[in-house]
Amino acid sequence: MDDKVNLAAKLALLEGAFKPGIVGYLNDYKLQVAKAKGEFVWHSHPETDDFFLVLEGRLTIQLRDRDIDLGPGELFVVPAGAEHCPRADEEAHILLIEARGTVNTGDAGGEDLTAPERDI
Amino acid sequence: MDDKVNLAAKLALLEGAFKPGIVGYLNDYKLQVAKAKGEFVWHSHPETDDFFLVLEGRLTIQLRDRDIDLGPGELFVVPAGAEHCPRADEEAHILLIEARGTVNTGDAGGEDLTAPERDI
Repeated sequence: MDDKVNLAAKLALLEGAFKPGIVGYLNDYKLQVAKAKGEFVWHSHPETDDFFLVLEGRLTIQLRDRDIDLGPGELFVVPAGAEHCPRADEEAHILLIEARGTVNTGDAGGEDLTAPERDI
Repeated sequence: MDDKVNLAAKLALLEGAFKPGIVGYLNDYKLQVAKAKGEFVWHSHPETDDFFLVLEGRLTIQLRDRDIDLGPGELFVVPAGAEHCPRADEEAHILLIEARGTVNTGDAGGEDLTAPERDI
C-alpha cells in the first residue's frame, strides 16, 4: 500500500448496494468498502470468517438464531459456515474483510447479487 | 464471536498507550483496539502486513522514507518488512489487525513496550 485510504472517499465512488470495492490488502485478505441497503441473500462461507464494521448508518446481520444490530463503530465477525443475511433499512456504509477469493454470495451464488472482485 | 463489539466501549477499558487489547478474531488474525499517544518504537514485522485504522484522533505512521498521517476513517497497511514507528501527538484510538502471534514491537522487542496478547 503506497498511500493511506480514506474510507469515505472510497465509498463515494460506489454505486449500488452490496457491490463491494477493494481498497487494499492485508496479506491474503481483501479490505473492502460497501454500501448496504435492503436485504442481501442468505449465504455462508464454509471456509472463512467474515468481518463487518459499520462506518455509517445501521446494519442488521441476520443469523438463523438471532439478529446482530450494528451501528457506527460496531463490528461483528460471522463465523465460518454460519448462515447469515445482511439487511439495512436505510443506506449503511461498511468495511468488510474477507480472505481473497471469497465470493460475496458465498454458497448461495446467483448472477444478480454475486459481485466480481474489483479494486477501487 | 457471540455478540457484536462496540469499539468505543472496548477502548474505554484500556489504560495506557500502545497496550492493545484483543476484541475478536478473524480466522487466525487478531482484531485489536489500542490507544496511541507519544512515539512508539521503530520496528518491522518481517512475516506479516500490519493494518491500522484510526477511529478517533490522529496517528502518524512514520516510515523510513515518508510519514503517513491518518485521521478518523483512514487506514493504512504497513507492508511486511517495512520499518515503521507510530506516533500520536494527542491521544488517538485505533483498530489494529495483525496475524495472531504477531508481537507489537516486531523485531525491536524490549520489555518496556512489548505487550502480551490479551483479550478484553
